Amino acid sequence: MAYNLWYWPSIQGRGEFVRLALEAAGIEYRDCARTKDEEALLDDMERHAKRGPFAPPYLEIDNMVIAQVANILMYLGERHQLAPSNMADRLWLNQLQLTIADLVAEVHNVHHPVEMMAYYDDQKPEAARAAAQFRDTRMPKFLQHFDDAVTSNQGDWLIDHRWTYADTSLFQVVEGLRYMFPRRMAAIEGDYPALIRIRDQVAELPGIKAYLKSDRRLAFNTDGIFRHYRELDGD
Amino acid sequence: MAYNLWYWPSIQGRGEFVRLALEAAGIEYRDCARTKDEEALLDDMERHAKRGPFAPPYLEIDNMVIAQVANILMYLGERHQLAPSNMADRLWLNQLQLTIADLVAEVHNVHHPVEMMAYYDDQKPEAARAAAQFRDTRMPKFLQHFDDAVTSNQGDWLIDHRWTYADTSLFQVVEGLRYMFPRRMAAIEGDYPALIRIRDQVAELPGIKAYLKSDRRLAFNTDGIFRHYRELDGD
Repeated sequence: MAYNLWYWPSIQGRGEFVRLALEAAGIEYRDCARTKDEEALLDDMERHAKRGPFAPPYLEIDNMVIAQVANILMYLGERHQLAPSNMADRLWLNQLQLTIADLVAEVHNVHHPVEMMAYYDDQKPEAARAAAQFRDTRMPKFLQHFDDAVTSNQGDWLIDHRWTYADTSLFQVVEGLRYMFPRRMAAIEGDYPALIRIRDQVAELPGIKAYLKSDRRLAFNTDGIFRHYRELDGD
Repeated sequence: MAYNLWYWPSIQGRGEFVRLALEAAGIEYRDCARTKDEEALLDDMERHAKRGPFAPPYLEIDNMVIAQVANILMYLGERHQLAPSNMADRLWLNQLQLTIADLVAEVHNVHHPVEMMAYYDDQKPEAARAAAQFRDTRMPKFLQHFDDAVTSNQGDWLIDHRWTYADTSLFQVVEGLRYMFPRRMAAIEGDYPALIRIRDQVAELPGIKAYLKSDRRLAFNTDGIFRHYRELDGD
C-alpha cells in the first residue's frame, strides 16, 4: 500500500528529506499536494483533529498520521530497514537527523531572522547580519560535525556498508548549501571530504539517480528553505 | 548504575527537559558539570571524537553517548517505561517532543534573532520585532496544538493514565513561558485549560515536588533559553 505524503507542493523544503529516503528505497508514495494543490493540503490538515501534525510534512498510513521529519524517517527506517535495528546505531542516526533539523532551522532563520511569517524583503539588513554569522561560524561547525560523523565509521556509509536515511539527508544538506551559498561552499567544502563523498555516493544510488532526472524532483527556489540570495553569500 | 548527564551548569536550558524526566521517575544521575564546572563540560565534549554530541545536553551510559533532547528522552522512555511501547503512541510522543523542540528554538530566536552567538544587548530592536510576532502568532499556535494534544486523549495524561516524558516537558514549556512572558501568559493561558491541567498534575508528582524544592532545580535566569526581558513582554 502506498503512503500518502503531504507537503507544500511547490518547494523541496523539509519534505525533501522524506522524499529522498522514499525514492532511494523505491517505496511507493503519493505526493498528495503535488497532484492536487496547496488548498488540498490545508483541507487535509484540518481533518486531523486528533493527533494531528503541527505542520507539514506528514505521512498518512492506515489512518495514522506521522509528522516531524526525524520522526517520519525513524518510522520508515524501522519499517523498511533503512536504518540498523540495534539500539546504539538507531539512536546515533536519530541524533544526527536531529542535528540536521537544527541546521535546517538555522538556515531558515538566515533569510527570516526577525519575522518568520513575513517576507525576506522586509528583513534584508537583518538577514545580511544573520547570514554573515551563519557562513563564518555555524556552517563550518555543522559541516565539521557531519564530516566527523562519517569518518567515525569504518564502512562506506554513515553506518557500516549500507545507506540509511541520514545519508540521503546529508546529500540534501550539501546540495542545499551549494545552492544557497555557492561561493562559501566552493571556499570550504574541500575541508569536508568524507561528507562530500557521502553526497556523491547518494547521487549514484539508482533510486536517487532516477529521481533527480524526473519531474518529481522540484528545483531549488527562493520560496524554499535553502534560498539563494546573492547578497547573502560570500567567500 | 547512575547516568552521567552533561549540560551547562548555570542554566535550565535544554538540559532541564532531561532533568525533569529523570527526577520525576526517580532515576539516579550525576549532573556532571554542576558538580564540577563549565570547563569540565568542554573538556568532556573534546573526549568524544567518535559519535560525539554536536552540543549539550548529552547522557553517558556504558561508554555510549546520547545527545539531542528528544533522542535522550526517547531512550529513557524505552528503557525506563516513561513512554508506551506500542508504535503509534511512541511515534506520537516523539512527534510532540520534536514540536516542543521547535518551540524552544523559536523561543531562543526571540532574544537572539540575528546573531545567536552575540549578546542580546547587540540585537535589542530586532528582538523586539521577533518577540511581537512570537507573542501574537506563534505562541498561541503552539499552545493550541499542545492543548489539542491533551484533549485528543481520553485519560488523565497525554497518553492514557500515566505520565510520560512529554508531560514533564509540557510542564517546562508552561513554566518557561510564564517566566519569559508573564503578561502575555496571564492574558492567554486560560484558553488552554487542558495544557495547564497537565502542568499542574506534573507539579504534584512526588519526584517533581521534591526536585522543585531542592537546590538541584536552578532558577530561571537571563542566561538561559526562556529569558524574561520586560521590554519583550506584552498583553
